[in-house]
Order: sequence, then structure tokens, then C-alpha cells
Amino acid sequence: MSTRLRLATSGLSAGKRARLHRILYQNGLGNGTALFLPYDQGLEHGPRDFFADPIAADPHYIVRLALEGGFNGIAIQIGLAEKFYWEYAGEVPLILKLNGKTDIPSDSRAISPLHASVEDAVRLGADAVGYTLYVGTPAQDADFAQYRQVRQDAQRFGMPLVVWAYPRGEAIERKGGKDSFYAVHYAARVASELGADVVKVNFPHPEKHAEVPAPYGAEFTSQEAIDAVVRAANRTMLLVSGGSRAGDDVMIEKAEESMAAGATGLIFGRNVWQRDHDESLRLVDRLRQILAKYPTP
Amino acid sequence: MSTRLRLATSGLSAGKRARLHRILYQNGLGNGTALFLPYDQGLEHGPRDFFADPIAADPHYIVRLALEGGFNGIAIQIGLAEKFYWEYAGEVPLILKLNGKTDIPSDSRAISPLHASVEDAVRLGADAVGYTLYVGTPAQDADFAQYRQVRQDAQRFGMPLVVWAYPRGEAIERKGGKDSFYAVHYAARVASELGADVVKVNFPHPEKHAEVPAPYGAEFTSQEAIDAVVRAANRTMLLVSGGSRAGDDVMIEKAEESMAAGATGLIFGRNVWQRDHDESLRLVDRLRQILAKYPTP
Amino acid sequence: MSTRLRLATSGLSAGKRARLHRILYQNGLGNGTALFLPYDQGLEHGPRDFFADPIAADPHYIVRLALEGGFNGIAIQIGLAEKFYWEYAGEVPLILKLNGKTDIPSDSRAISPLHASVEDAVRLGADAVGYTLYVGTPAQDADFAQYRQVRQDAQRFGMPLVVWAYPRGEAIERKGGKDSFYAVHYAARVASELGADVVKVNFPHPEKHAEVPAPYGAEFTSQEAIDAVVRAANRTMLLVSGGSRAGDDVMIEKAEESMAAGATGLIFGRNVWQRDHDESLRLVDRLRQILAKYPTP
Amino acid sequence: MSTRLRLATSGLSAGKRARLHRILYQNGLGNGTALFLPYDQGLEHGPRDFFADPIAADPHYIVRLALEGGFNGIAIQIGLAEKFYWEYAGEVPLILKLNGKTDIPSDSRAISPLHASVEDAVRLGADAVGYTLYVGTPAQDADFAQYRQVRQDAQRFGMPLVVWAYPRGEAIERKGGKDSFYAVHYAARVASELGADVVKVNFPHPEKHAEVPAPYGAEFTSQEAIDAVVRAANRTMLLVSGGSRAGDDVMIEKAEESMAAGATGLIFGRNVWQRDHDESLRLVDRLRQILAKYPTP
Amino acid sequence: MSTRLRLATSGLSAGKRARLHRILYQNGLGNGTALFLPYDQGLEHGPRDFFADPIAADPHYIVRLALEGGFNGIAIQIGLAEKFYWEYAGEVPLILKLNGKTDIPSDSRAISPLHASVEDAVRLGADAVGYTLYVGTPAQDADFAQYRQVRQDAQRFGMPLVVWAYPRGEAIERKGGKDSFYAVHYAARVASELGADVVKVNFPHPEKHAEVPAPYGAEFTSQEAIDAVVRAANRTMLLVSGGSRAGDDVMIEKAEESMAAGATGLIFGRNVWQRDHDESLRLVDRLRQILAKYPTP
Repeated sequence: MSTRLRLATSGLSAGKRARLHRILYQNGLGNGTALFLPYDQGLEHGPRDFFADPIAADPHYIVRLALEGGFNGIAIQIGLAEKFYWEYAGEVPLILKLNGKTDIPSDSRAISPLHASVEDAVRLGADAVGYTLYVGTPAQDADFAQYRQVRQDAQRFGMPLVVWAYPRGEAIERKGGKDSFYAVHYAARVASELGADVVKVNFPHPEKHAEVPAPYGAEFTSQEAIDAVVRAANRTMLLVSGGSRAGDDVMIEKAEESMAAGATGLIFGRNVWQRDHDESLRLVDRLRQILAKYPTP
Repeated sequence: MSTRLRLATSGLSAGKRARLHRILYQNGLGNGTALFLPYDQGLEHGPRDFFADPIAADPHYIVRLALEGGFNGIAIQIGLAEKFYWEYAGEVPLILKLNGKTDIPSDSRAISPLHASVEDAVRLGADAVGYTLYVGTPAQDADFAQYRQVRQDAQRFGMPLVVWAYPRGEAIERKGGKDSFYAVHYAARVASELGADVVKVNFPHPEKHAEVPAPYGAEFTSQEAIDAVVRAANRTMLLVSGGSRAGDDVMIEKAEESMAAGATGLIFGRNVWQRDHDESLRLVDRLRQILAKYPTP
Repeated sequence: MSTRLRLATSGLSAGKRARLHRILYQNGLGNGTALFLPYDQGLEHGPRDFFADPIAADPHYIVRLALEGGFNGIAIQIGLAEKFYWEYAGEVPLILKLNGKTDIPSDSRAISPLHASVEDAVRLGADAVGYTLYVGTPAQDADFAQYRQVRQDAQRFGMPLVVWAYPRGEAIERKGGKDSFYAVHYAARVASELGADVVKVNFPHPEKHAEVPAPYGAEFTSQEAIDAVVRAANRTMLLVSGGSRAGDDVMIEKAEESMAAGATGLIFGRNVWQRDHDESLRLVDRLRQILAKYPTP
Repeated sequence: MSTRLRLATSGLSAGKRARLHRILYQNGLGNGTALFLPYDQGLEHGPRDFFADPIAADPHYIVRLALEGGFNGIAIQIGLAEKFYWEYAGEVPLILKLNGKTDIPSDSRAISPLHASVEDAVRLGADAVGYTLYVGTPAQDADFAQYRQVRQDAQRFGMPLVVWAYPRGEAIERKGGKDSFYAVHYAARVASELGADVVKVNFPHPEKHAEVPAPYGAEFTSQEAIDAVVRAANRTMLLVSGGSRAGDDVMIEKAEESMAAGATGLIFGRNVWQRDHDESLRLVDRLRQILAKYPTP
Repeated sequence: MSTRLRLATSGLSAGKRARLHRILYQNGLGNGTALFLPYDQGLEHGPRDFFADPIAADPHYIVRLALEGGFNGIAIQIGLAEKFYWEYAGEVPLILKLNGKTDIPSDSRAISPLHASVEDAVRLGADAVGYTLYVGTPAQDADFAQYRQVRQDAQRFGMPLVVWAYPRGEAIERKGGKDSFYAVHYAARVASELGADVVKVNFPHPEKHAEVPAPYGAEFTSQEAIDAVVRAANRTMLLVSGGSRAGDDVMIEKAEESMAAGATGLIFGRNVWQRDHDESLRLVDRLRQILAKYPTP
């Protein structure tokens, strides 16, 4: 288990530190952990994700859910931020997602195009920006080029940068797939090498090891895998994603393992809002109980 | 049915609100609904669209038709705006269309290139700009990049942004086609996620469901489909397009369903001007009767 | 008595609103009032202000005092912000003071030169910027020119703009002086006319009316004067300054009258820190008791 | 054997000279030679390189190793520089690596995308920047385009430019491979032709001559090959890379031959840190003994 | 006595810290103190300063003196830096002085105009920039305006900013003069308020108290005065200037008092080079003996 990174020894600039302090210590449990609500699926997957619970199609409902659930932040695209955040501006931290794509074209050369800027985030009073980096994609050069601009602007404005580090593309498909231990481990490291302040990964699956590089062919428990992923991120704070809706007990177990490994927090979207309102809050409550056990002093 | 968005609670900036107020409350019926006349087919399809009624090839005729018909706005490209709008400047709101393309090359990797700027629209006294976004195209990265500039300029200048959200490209063709419920539903949502103030869509066809994602395989009435599309757009005002010329009764029925669903208005071009002058005005009159039934307070 | 301005009906942009929400509702009493600690006297008057209580010369002591006292914000210059705020970044809102001057040259043509930018404030994670406007100075042209840049940048970045509206210059001296009702009343109005989000004024003295325009020659109670000043600021929130150290009871009475008049809060520096630590906190406690009586819903 | 380049007759600008002086004469042995520690493998190969000695996954450990080993510089990516260098800023020269890539997609059209700028290097107090140029790649046009920007910025800021000159791409694979004498010889020359101040190459293998141009088909000793490579670089200082971990004696012999040939120094990463701490320092000691024999006056 | 500031707890950015580390720990005594050689008198006073020892008119002689004397840096204007520094680039840190003036016009409205930029300093490989701020001058607005640009560029490029904080102008002349305790005390504070990393002041004269503000009329020893000046500078490192040539014993005593007060170092020009070469080095040796007694850990 790693020691969780503290802001005081992070080397972060005053601006990034001020904004992360608000996220980690003035919202949610206020104990240095984070529970984020991502709501970019309307762009990434389209409205089909909302058929399970139609009210979830309404961004106003989701912003209120973030408030009621005591989340540390809500991650949305520029359109929803412009139209829905102003009513609750400052009541819950905004993580403005700067890029995104539909899932209509093939992912073989996946890239997530920028449609907003760090300056948009400043203007809206956001406390962080989000960028999806498709680790391993053949379109890596275009991806890094737009990422560089985001990183430099984030540095200039003191805005924390959260990287959605997603293994993707035809080569990843051939080498173990996007949630193999190899792929997630590599993705966490790439985010830290490229200067993310926070990295979001999916939980690693060590049992998926067809065609992966040699060291990953060995047996690893899921705890060993997530431990290694947290270490790979080193001083980049790590968030573990809930991913598509899964059985609650499995999910809770992974959340527990992630926090034990030294993750800073969890980012759960569909698992939370693809169920009715009271059920959503009950799940959030279980997640908060886990976070409460892992305070960062 | 959604509640129609009111400017007073929209969160829109003063400039966007002032210009939308002129469109919605000082033109047309003045009741918060809109009837737009699009006239970009000379670029998009070429002059073949004007053989049905040759006088329609004359932009001067069309601008006057917009005035006579009591439209809330006319959507044209920069060239026609420069040469024909000045004579009637201010008499009917101008929606300057900023991008467009010919239909000569294949649409498999469709993108609609920018040929004008938001600053052109300010200079011409326009009350909105229009941008065609090809949802699902493999050229999504280039499309989002030019869209981002338009959105940011529109925000900076307080100019309402109308997005023509058109499913297009080889993947869309494989998945139900460009006017399937799936495709139109997704397109409306994308426009709202990316920050359109107004979105223009084609009427959805729930019966086209070959190869679409699972939830769309069920039975839906056209009213259910358009209701869902309006909800997907949430606080982005929705305009339903007439599309290529169709039977009047079918068209009127769809217009009625759209307004009942909570759309803000209609945008009808070829259906209006591909017939003789008096016929055009008679059709416009039927459309206005529908709009009169759905005032936004 | 005015009704205190609410963020929800302020027409402020999302960014300004988010930042003011943090100041007004997530710090201090969290009831919509504000108690600010200004600490720019080291520049404005020089170290002579610290002889009364030498520990007050240490910015680290003052930042900690802001935290212990539960202030809603601390207003400091760029140098102290760079060197002292990072340790406590986010723990108390930073109001970055963008201009300032020494009191060595004459004030007859007073201007407070800019030495920092709104972008510096964004970079440091500040929640507002401060600008001293010398209302009435013969150097008004240069003052307005640099103010304009600040206001535009503040608008662009969604950063609340706090204006220190200080009557100053040879003409003011001839007309009742810098704290006459006439001068303070006029200054509050100027700040609102020029786009301040918050204005800081000194408490008006209606008894100083030599050489002031006619209406100010009448008898006014101090409550009537401060009522009028708050109304002059209209939708610009008003803070009343403690000024140089005065008798506690007089000061408390003015604070009470200010809040009763509809002021948003108080900004007390020398009155707070020109006494020993425990005495400072005792005074702060009295001020907070007043603020507690005037919540903004 | 070439005469080793002296700064005094290099024609370098004051800034490049000042920074190279610090690297070559105020760090390491201070005798004009250089021993660099590269640590970009976490991005280039992923965490699999750290399984051999897990502590090497921790950038903090590696920065300290650079200090303990008396290296002349450490070459890292922006993310690790931001998060780990500040604690030791100035204690060992920083070579900021400006581009990099994962090894997940194919190398057939290899390009190493930029993710940081020369200005980032200035801001962080770096003494040089590093750029990987894939000599021979089909993506040469994009590679040269981004290289040009880096070279121009490096010239403008007086920042030494270290080029990782790596033969790569499908054509290189067909012509002797990436470490043939032909390929390394050509790469060294390309770096000097394009304006590198320092070039990093792999040790050439004259025995690999299948499909190489005629002159390279002859017999060459490895000393003859490295002599020619150093001459090809002319006034561009040459560093020889350790590459993937190899037998110590072979490696030491190549290091000796390189310095005898007139190389300025060595750049050894995995060979150093893929072993335990004391073993690392023992190897470094052997390398320093070689460098001590080849001072540049 | 204050505790001397340590880089590790300074909150300085990586670049500023790296460059200050080089100045303070890799040059001179390497113990965290500094001895600087200023040589801008040829511009500030003209060649008359070189009549005492004509060889001192030769910049080449002075640069060599800085090396021989083991100084931590040499402060010169752009012209001498361009023509003389390149030969010794990196051998002694360069502090590029960015502004300066002749003493031909009156000092009553003194301002020191910029003639070089922080980017010039980066280009030349400098480790700091110097700016003369005339505290109290009536031209304060123009002075702050050009200072702001320098401070922001220094922040952007990670370049330490040394402020020559010189009380000057007609008001200062009326209030105790430029080396009164009042004036020097205020000047040190202004530099820290405005964001200097290092401030250079003249030694304060508490006996000069005609027309100064009340608290300065009391009796103070010179040790009490310099103690207060160091505290006024808080986290801005303080250098005490030798000023015009004075008796050696007086000067040594002031140096001793300054270091005892917590100053970081000394900056001695005319006192050093207005005597013959061996005498210069003998004086330097006495100064270094003082610095050796006050290491910063």
C-alpha cells in the first residue's frame, strides 16, 4: 500500500492546490478523499444510457443528485455546464470535461477531440478540467498535441488537470484489451509522465493476459494489481472508475481494494444514476462509508 | 412533454438573451415560438433544388418571402447575406450559416467546412449563427475543432448558436441511417452537450431500427420519439426541420407533434419555397396556426 | 433599508457566482455575509502600521489570523500572495489586490498603479480581485484606463471584482474631504456605474459638509447616510471598511448600522490586527455576532 | 580519434554555453565529460521496465540516485519534472524531454509527439531539452516540422538541444535495423545537420550489414565504427546510450571505446537502475573511472 | 534576529528555486549566503567612478575579478553581458540588470527605464534579473507599470527577481532622505509586497529622522534598524549594499550587523573595485569570512 499524496508535499502551484483543497477538504467528506459524479455519457454513448432510469436524462436532476449525495465534484461537458451549472455555481465543484466524442465511428484510431478550453473552465468557476487521453491509440500524435495545449493552459491558470487515461485502439485490442492489468498499469504511468494532477483509470483485470508483455503473464490478485497501478501513478492522484453498471457487491469490493491501495477516490456515474433516486443515494452512502475509512491527513 | 424553456430562467448571457428575444418575441408570432426559413440548399445541393419553382433561385425573392410570411428568421450563407440582406437589414432576423459544403463528394467522412465567422455575423447585424455538425462522422475531430472556435466566439460576442445536428457518415449508414430515432436522438443530445443554444434536427423515424443499439429496437410511436428528442436536447431549444419536400398532411402532422413535444419551432425551406408564391404563403399560414397553439409565456 | 442582493437574482455569470458563493456561503459564517481581512497597509502606509503590534508585520501571522478568526477572505498584494498564501491555499479565500501605492508622494493627483493582473489571480486560485479607484482624482483618466482592463479581464475569467472606492485628490479635499457623506455616496455610485461586483467604502460622515453640494448640507443621521450609500451601490454588494484604528464601541455601532442598511459585510484590518492576538479574536467575535443577525437567504 | 569539442571554440551562444558549462564543468566529474541518467522508460515502454527492481518505479528514488551517483544530468518527461524535480531543483541539471510515446502502436511510421515546450524547460530551470528524432521514419515530415519549432525555441532561449537520434520505421527495419553502423552513422550526421547541440546514439553494430548501402558491407571494428560516428556528428557533442540492460563487461568496453573515439559522454538508464541500489552505484563508479580518463580541457 | 529563509520552505517555483540554488549553493561559499558584484555604475554615474582605479573601467577585468573573488554573481547591464559574459558563460552567475538611467537629469521624479527583458536574461543564461524600483518617487505609476511586466515575465520563466529598492524622489528628500531608517524600512517592505524574490537595500541610518513619521523619531541602534528591515522583507531575501566607498572598518561592521540580522548576503561594488586588484581581493576575503559565519542550512 502506498502512502496517499498530501497537498502540502505535492509541489503543486498555489492555484492547483487551492482548487484541489476545495475539492478534497471543503466538499464531500472533507477528509482528503473524493467521490466524483461523471455525467458525460450523453455524449460518449448517447441517450441510450438513460433508458434504464429516464429521469437521469435530465442534467438538472443529476446536478441536484451530486448535491444531495455529497459528491466532491461533477464532471460534465461545456454545454451542460453552461446551461445547468450556473444555478448551483459553487455549491459543488465543477470538473469541466474538455474533450469527448460519440461512440458512433470505430475506435480503432480513437481520439477524443477538444471542444472546450481551460479558459472556459476558469470563466465558469470550475475547480478542475478533465481530458480523455487514449493511451495506445494510433492517433497518439494528434492526441498528445491537443493534450499539450491543455496541460500548458492548466499550468498557466493553476487549474488541476484530471486525465481519463483510457487504453484504446487496435493495438490495445490485440494486446489484452482495454482493462487488462498491463493496459491500465501503463495508462496510469503515462498520465503521470505527461503531467496529470489526477488520473482516472478503470479497475485492472490481471486475469486478462493474452498477448500482453511477459511480466504480466504471472498470477496477480486484484489487490496486487491495483496496488501496482497506484504506485505507477506516483504523485498523480488516482481515481478508480465504476465503469458500466455492475453488481453492487463486486463494485464495492473493488472500491474497497482501490482505497486500500492508496487511491484518492472513486468516480462513479452509471452505477449511481442508472437506478432510482433513493437507490442511488443508498449506493452513494455505501461508497462514502468506504472513503471515510481512508482519510488523508 | 417537456416544459418549454423560458429565456428568463435559461442562464443565457445578456447578449444571447437580447438576440433571442428579438427572434422569439419581436418577430413572427411574437409568442416565443419560431418559424425559420433556411435557404442554404444552393450550396448544399446546388441549383437542382430550384427547378421545381425557378423563381426560388432568386435570393431576393426568398428574402421577401421571409418578410411576407412573417418568419422569425432566415438562415443563409455569407454570400447571400452580403448581397441581399442589406436591403432588408433588421426587417427579419438573420441567422448567418457559418459552414456548408457541396454534395458532390461522398458523405462517408462528411465534414462541413467553415467559410464565415461569428465576427462576420456581428458585422452584418445577424441575430444568430448556424453551424452544421455531422454527428457520428469519422471526421469528428476536425468537426469538433472548428465547432469549438465557433462556440467560443459565439459566447464571447453574446451570439446565439444554432446547431444543425445531422447524423452522417459511414458508421451512421450502417446503424439505422441518418433519420433513425437512434441517430436523431443522439444528435440532439450531442448538440446540448456541446453547448448549442438552439438545435435543428430532422423528425425521427422510430421504425428504422436495423442495426441500432438495443433500446431502440422496441416499438415507439412518432410522438414518443419526438418527445424523447426534445428531452435529450434539455435546455437547448429545438427546431424541427421539414427536410426534403413531403406530402403536406404528413408534414403538418409532424409539426404538430413536434410542438406538442415541447419544440420551440420549425425550420422549413424546400417545403415552403418549392411551390408557387401563394401556395408557399398558404403553407406558412398552416404552420403559424400550429405555432399559435404553443406560446411560451 | 435595502433588501440584500441574492446571488440567484444577481445576473452574475456562472464563474463570478461560483466564486462569490464560496466566499459568502462556504467560508465565515456561511450565511451570505462577509468579513474580510485587508492586509495591504505594508504597501499603502509602510511598516509604521506594525509598530503597535510588531507580530502583525509578519504575513504568516496574519494569514493564520484570518483562518483562526473565520474570515470570509483575506485581501493581500501579489508579493505576499506568492510567498505566503500557497501554504494555506484554499483554506481561506484570497482576494488579490491588483493595485496599490506608497503614501510617500502627495495624494493631490492620487492614482493607485496596477502591479498585478486578473490572470495572476486566476493562477493563484483567488476568489476575487481588488482594485482601488480614486474617485475624484485629477488622474481619473489614467485610473479609468487601467480599471477598464481589469474589469474586462474579470468579466472574461468570471472573477468577482471588488472596488475600493476611495474619494481622493485635491478637489475632494476642498469639498468636504474623503469621508464626507457626499464623497462616500458618490463613490459607491461610481463603483456600481463602472461595473464593480462588490464595493468597499468608508463609513460616511454626514456632519462633514463644508463645501459639499447643496443637498448634503441638510441634517442626516449616520443611519440615513449609510442607508443611502447602500442604495447608491444598488446591485453592487457593499462592504464597509473599518479604516484606521478607532474606539471599539463607535466601530461596532457603525458595523451594526451598516448591516442594518443592507451592506453585505465588513472589511476590518488595522482595527483587528493592531492589538494583541487574543484581543484581535475577541473583536472579530463581536463583529461576527453582528453579521449573524443579518443572513442573506 | 576526434578532438573533443571545447565550449570556447564551439560558436555556441552565451545561454547555451552557460548551461552546458554547468552540465559539463559544475556537475559530475566537472572535467568536461558527461554521465546522464535517462528515465523516460515509464512512458516509452511502460511500467514493465520496473519489474526487475520495483523501487525504480519511484521517480523520487531515481532523482536521488542521480544525486548520489554524481550524474551530470537527469532526463525526464514533464510530468515527473513537475512533481519530483522541485524538491531537488538545481542540485542536478534537468534535461527536460519534450517528446515521447508509448510502444503500444506499431513503430512502422514512428513519430514521437511533442508534449512539452522549450518554455516549459526554461520555467522549470532545466539546463537542456531533449528531442527524439526518428531518423528514417516515413513520418519524417511531421517529425521535422515539430523538431523545427523546438530548435528555433531552443535557439531563442539559449537552451542546449539534445537529440535522441534513433533510426526507426519500416524502411530502417528492412535496411540493417536500428543499430546497424549504417543507421547509427547516418543518424549522428542527421542530428548535426539539423542543428542538435548534443546527440544521443546507440552504439553501432558494424556486423549488422544485411541490406545496407555498399560501403557499410566492408569489415569494421567497433572502434572504427564509433570513431566514424563521432566524426559524423562533428561539432555536435555525442553521447552513447547504454540501451537495454546488457552484460557489464561488454557495456564497459563500449563505453571505453566511445570515450576513446571522442564522445562527450554516456547516457545510461536501465543498465544503471535495473539492479539494486548498491549495484547501481558500483556500476556508476566504473563508468566515472572511464570518464575521468578523458577530460576536455 | 530573523531565521534566514530556506529554499525548501520558500514556496518558490522549481525554476526560481533551481536558479537560486545555483547562486547560493553552487557558487561563492556554497553555504546559502551570497556576495554579489554590481557593476552598473558606468551607466548610473558614468565613467567618473573609474578614475580611482582606471583598470576598473574595463568590464573584462571586472568579470575576471568576480571569478577570482569567488562571488555568487555579477550584476551588469545588457551591453556588457552581450560583449563580455559569453567568454565566461556559466562560470559565475549572471544577474542581468533590466533597467537603469544616467544621473544627469534631476532625481526629483526619478524613474529607471527598462532597456532589456527577462527573455534577454533567459537567452543569455542568466540566473536572475535585477530591477531598480524607486520607492516614493512621484513617477510611481510608470515605475509600477514596467515593474509589473518584469515580475510577470520572471514568474513565467522561473527567473529570480532581484529588486534594487531605492527610496528616491522629492518627497523622500523632504522626509528624512534616501537612507533614513524610515525610507529603507519602507522600501524593503514594498519589495516584498510587490513580489521581489531578493531585495537590495542600503544600510539604514536611524539617526536621520528629521520629518519622518512618528515611530521613527525614537532612538534605534543600527542593529535594531537592520533587524527591522530584514523582518520587513519577510520571505524576500535581503542583500545589503556597500554603497559609495566608505571606510573599511565601518563597512565591515555594517556587513556583520546585516548578516547577524538575517540578511542573505552582501552586494559590494565600488567598495571592492575602486582600489587596486590585490586590495580588492583582500577586502573580498574579509567579507567572505563574515558570510562563512552565517550559513543557511
